[in-house]
Amino acid sequence: MTTDTERKARERHADEERIREVLADRAAATGQRDARRFLAHCAPETVDFSLAPPLRFKGPEALDQQALEAWYATWDGPIEVTMTEVEIAVGDDVAFAHSIDLMRGTKADGFEVRLWSRATVGLRRTDGVWKITHTHSSVPFLMDGSGRAALDLTP
Amino acid sequence: MTTDTERKARERHADEERIREVLADRAAATGQRDARRFLAHCAPETVDFSLAPPLRFKGPEALDQQALEAWYATWDGPIEVTMTEVEIAVGDDVAFAHSIDLMRGTKADGFEVRLWSRATVGLRRTDGVWKITHTHSSVPFLMDGSGRAALDLTP
Repeated sequence: MTTDTERKARERHADEERIREVLADRAAATGQRDARRFLAHCAPETVDFSLAPPLRFKGPEALDQQALEAWYATWDGPIEVTMTEVEIAVGDDVAFAHSIDLMRGTKADGFEVRLWSRATVGLRRTDGVWKITHTHSSVPFLMDGSGRAALDLTP
Repeated sequence: MTTDTERKARERHADEERIREVLADRAAATGQRDARRFLAHCAPETVDFSLAPPLRFKGPEALDQQALEAWYATWDGPIEVTMTEVEIAVGDDVAFAHSIDLMRGTKADGFEVRLWSRATVGLRRTDGVWKITHTHSSVPFLMDGSGRAALDLTP
């Protein structure tokens, strides 16, 4: 016998798997420096709190493929993103996920990047498809008056 | 006649108001430096990506009232938090909100703080009550090799 509770739990589990696929596909798109594929998961109204200024990118600014490609061009070769400590909260048509991510690669000037950061992603289901409507990526900063970002933290 | 769609929209609207009250009460608690009231909105499993290191606080670490009170003690007088550009996505039992916040106050050493930051809050409804299970607060950093946090941004 299948109860409503069991059915709902199965649906939530299936949705969580779909959201994991969205997150994995975005990480893979970054690895391959494929801006179109990366942005395809975002809804038009996306609000992005990015690693770099300004405070937020909204809508078309958050979906600027040329800007993303220009950023990819500052790297030499792939940009590897590994997500760890992934937790996903799934509702009927709203979800959010958070993780601790490691970004690795080589900048065009030869600088080796190995940066741990925090990522939060908010999603809504529209026409049966989970779309990202909010992203927040950051590192902490040292509240010691130095004004420095904490770029050498590890989990 | 009330359709299911109308009923659902009304429920979502009521939940959005409840979540606004949670966010407003947390801001008020910060203003009054009331750690117990601030933390009362958090679920035991909360994962906090804070302005300051480490990368994340989890569970009991995120709910450490003494640590929060010690931070309040580095301020002289109230810590005023103003939330702007608040957007809330509400599902049946999962929600998230994001905002651009202004923190103002005077540190114990006389330093005048006026800091714009980004905030994301994830919530789950448990036993009919919306509880915070995830918070992410940050400022961007300058990806120009300087390693500096961007502490002088305005919306």
